[in-house]
Amino acid sequence: MRKLASHVEGRWVEAEGRLETLVNPATEESLVEAGADGVDRAAALAFARTTGGPALRALTYAQRGELIRSVCDAIQSHRDELIGLAIANGGNTRGDAKFDIDGATFTLSAYADLGKSLGDTRVRVDGDGVQLGRTSRFHGEHVWVPRHGVAIHVNAFNFPAWGLAEKAAVALLAGMPVVTKPATSSALVAHRIVEILVEKQVLPAGALSLLMGGAGDLLQHVGPQDVVAFTGSGATGELIRGLAPVIRHSVRVNVEADSLNAAILGPDVEEGAETYEFYLKDVLRDMTQKAGQKCTAIRRILVPAPLADRVRDALVDRLATIVVGNPAQEGVRMGPVATAQQHKDVREGIDALARDGRLVFGQTAKPVGSPDGKGYFVGPVLIETEPGADAPTVHSREVFGPVATIVPYDGTAANAAALVARGEGGLVSSVYSEDVAFTSEVVLGLAPFHGRVFLGSAKIAEQSPGPGTVLPTLVHGGPGRAGGGEELGGLRGLAFYQQRVALEGSRPVIERITGAKSQG
Amino acid sequence: MRKLASHVEGRWVEAEGRLETLVNPATEESLVEAGADGVDRAAALAFARTTGGPALRALTYAQRGELIRSVCDAIQSHRDELIGLAIANGGNTRGDAKFDIDGATFTLSAYADLGKSLGDTRVRVDGDGVQLGRTSRFHGEHVWVPRHGVAIHVNAFNFPAWGLAEKAAVALLAGMPVVTKPATSSALVAHRIVEILVEKQVLPAGALSLLMGGAGDLLQHVGPQDVVAFTGSGATGELIRGLAPVIRHSVRVNVEADSLNAAILGPDVEEGAETYEFYLKDVLRDMTQKAGQKCTAIRRILVPAPLADRVRDALVDRLATIVVGNPAQEGVRMGPVATAQQHKDVREGIDALARDGRLVFGQTAKPVGSPDGKGYFVGPVLIETEPGADAPTVHSREVFGPVATIVPYDGTAANAAALVARGEGGLVSSVYSEDVAFTSEVVLGLAPFHGRVFLGSAKIAEQSPGPGTVLPTLVHGGPGRAGGGEELGGLRGLAFYQQRVALEGSRPVIERITGAKSQG
Repeated sequence: MRKLASHVEGRWVEAEGRLETLVNPATEESLVEAGADGVDRAAALAFARTTGGPALRALTYAQRGELIRSVCDAIQSHRDELIGLAIANGGNTRGDAKFDIDGATFTLSAYADLGKSLGDTRVRVDGDGVQLGRTSRFHGEHVWVPRHGVAIHVNAFNFPAWGLAEKAAVALLAGMPVVTKPATSSALVAHRIVEILVEKQVLPAGALSLLMGGAGDLLQHVGPQDVVAFTGSGATGELIRGLAPVIRHSVRVNVEADSLNAAILGPDVEEGAETYEFYLKDVLRDMTQKAGQKCTAIRRILVPAPLADRVRDALVDRLATIVVGNPAQEGVRMGPVATAQQHKDVREGIDALARDGRLVFGQTAKPVGSPDGKGYFVGPVLIETEPGADAPTVHSREVFGPVATIVPYDGTAANAAALVARGEGGLVSSVYSEDVAFTSEVVLGLAPFHGRVFLGSAKIAEQSPGPGTVLPTLVHGGPGRAGGGEELGGLRGLAFYQQRVALEGSRPVIERITGAKSQG
Repeated sequence: MRKLASHVEGRWVEAEGRLETLVNPATEESLVEAGADGVDRAAALAFARTTGGPALRALTYAQRGELIRSVCDAIQSHRDELIGLAIANGGNTRGDAKFDIDGATFTLSAYADLGKSLGDTRVRVDGDGVQLGRTSRFHGEHVWVPRHGVAIHVNAFNFPAWGLAEKAAVALLAGMPVVTKPATSSALVAHRIVEILVEKQVLPAGALSLLMGGAGDLLQHVGPQDVVAFTGSGATGELIRGLAPVIRHSVRVNVEADSLNAAILGPDVEEGAETYEFYLKDVLRDMTQKAGQKCTAIRRILVPAPLADRVRDALVDRLATIVVGNPAQEGVRMGPVATAQQHKDVREGIDALARDGRLVFGQTAKPVGSPDGKGYFVGPVLIETEPGADAPTVHSREVFGPVATIVPYDGTAANAAALVARGEGGLVSSVYSEDVAFTSEVVLGLAPFHGRVFLGSAKIAEQSPGPGTVLPTLVHGGPGRAGGGEELGGLRGLAFYQQRVALEGSRPVIERITGAKSQG
């Protein structure tokens, strides 16, 4: 079987010893093998620091933007091939695969544009300068400069293209070299992307390394200028944060972890209204897209109690139309979850959630186009809780599959916000209403607990991608359970990879350094 | 003996059991007792969260600014009393004490002004909005909102007033209640400040609590909306970062820790030049002010090798004039270090540093005005290393007293920057030169490893407070060994206490929430 090598120290390095088999989750057919036993992780990091870092720092933002544009173009030119791999290795429908690949290129394109807009500079000025003394000559200015370490990116299985690209785009524009580690189970797409970039010699040596297989001792070799960005389970996030070298060297860690994203239907919205349909469509999309394996997917469906039965019935009707099966098959609307482990976790999660309420929809039809008994299929599942029920699992356990729970609330903004806050921090929650006062109150109630709040109203229904789509111009991350991280958000995302430094001294000298014209 | 109580849950709570005695470090005379055994720390945090938090969040920035102004005025009106306490309990000279108290009021005043400038709003907009869809109606905007937890401030012994005030000013303006824990040994000043604020009823209940004595189980009760800001040793910083509840809840931790701040003399600067004198004066101030117990004090004196002997001789001459003794005594220029433990640590540190080079000045004269054999006195100590010497301790061990080391370098910017980088991250380093090309190269070399870089040149000599002074308008903190933190910097400091949230939806609705006028 073909073996996927790592690309470190500027070359392809095959693993020694133990390999993992990547499969098609719809058929359990073996595709390729991958692993990284014997790959020298310390050397991989050192090469990135000493070769990739200086090469990137020598470039201006505009030049780094051009590199990112080339990465984007390279992926774009292999779009169909990558979609095929995502369908085979990720259990993705064609739509799911496009969402991943096009998410990657959309984000890369946005950061390429940002690089261009920053122009021919290497030092980025932060905010306005300040007069520090009696005269304007004694001056303070803040600048951002790239950190001299390596950015270690540990990605989740659900978005092998987008996950790699969104983290890499920001780090590369900031001027930091990247060692990216995809989740092994779905790594075919990420591996092929790096292979394409190596074939086309898009990036300077050491700017982007790829570690296939387990992290091993990777994080034991971090130093004070390195950063670690991780997307995945809260448990692994905790483990990374607690590593001795991470703590000892004050290594920056960005975690995107579990999130019980909520979608609140306003009490003003009547059945059949445009905003009502908008709401149902977004819930349905988040439950089924990528088989619910999106960190931003709606998990808690907050509906005013009097409307809960009707929302439930409408969702049940629509979920019943979702054809589950092998996504290579025509007409399939939802594929399997990504791995055997996911399959087990999701099923256990459903059982746990159901104990908080009542399972009102759980498809049992045989998956289309899949060999008997094969494939990691979970049909869409809808659970509902009683109004006022405690439902501790619903508010604390993220079940990472096509599963959501209806949580009736009393129709007040305060009750909705309080219920959502029980999630203890999330990536995104949303409110669908035409009542601006209600929306405002909910938004301010949700804000401290989220990285993003989505405001659904009829006027934007037509052009909205829904709360589940991460946009490069808006921050992505959330406090507490969601990991306390922050990524993207345009230039905001660069901060993680850079050092903000105050320059204090003579204004003309500082302005020479920052490249600004002296007006002093 | 008088006992200093904690102020928690809106009232004074005396400790049960074990107490610590606060002494005058110049005489070892006992002053008061303090402790916090039996103080319910979980309840203290809960009261701050549930009473102080909502009270602060109900205020606009302008109103919070007024509160901070009142805190500033209250301290100002007790300035002489507080200076007296700092002299008695801190080993401070009158100048040292003023530096601490006036640093506190200067910072409070700056944040009071910032509050005023933010005006009658509770939601702070971050940057420009973005168009997200085909039309400007689908809109994104980032806002900052206060976190709903409590800000735990664990302060160092060296700045009982400034340390408390600078952290509290930023948290209060951000809208977060504070539980502040001064270092017990020098807590008389911090205790009196809180006492004054309570007497004058300056702040709403729960906005500022005071924990005297050890932290105990304080940090075992942190939750996902809480933050911890710590100033002190790197070892304690590591301990805090590694605490299970901190990791589990993604609690934000800001650490200001060890720093081997360097001051580089440019090769263009000749003996006797204005910049040369500026340099010597700053080194001398940092070695002796607060008996060298400033986290920003110059520890490494980088001098071009040909000039090293002359800089040494000049410093030795000037250090010889420093009168060490009981700061209550007229004419004393430097007091003792703060505690018996400090005394032991500093003396051990001096021995370790001296093994890297040669001790060229170490005062042995009997301290003035102190009982025989009493007081934690360490005279100023200057060490020098050979050009090109490895000197591992000089670049890795912060000796927190009146101690610095001359490190000759080869006169190139690259060598200077490389030597400084061996400190693995610091709060501030400085370069003194009239050569803009040299300065620029050094600054860009130092920047990734520092929170602040100070550019000393003749034109600003007269109005500069030197690199050792932390200014509220510039960020304070540094990567790696310095703890990876960032405080102050005007509004930048508020970010730690707030959540940045992306609002995504209809532009007019978002603008209603942010208070901006709709232009859509």
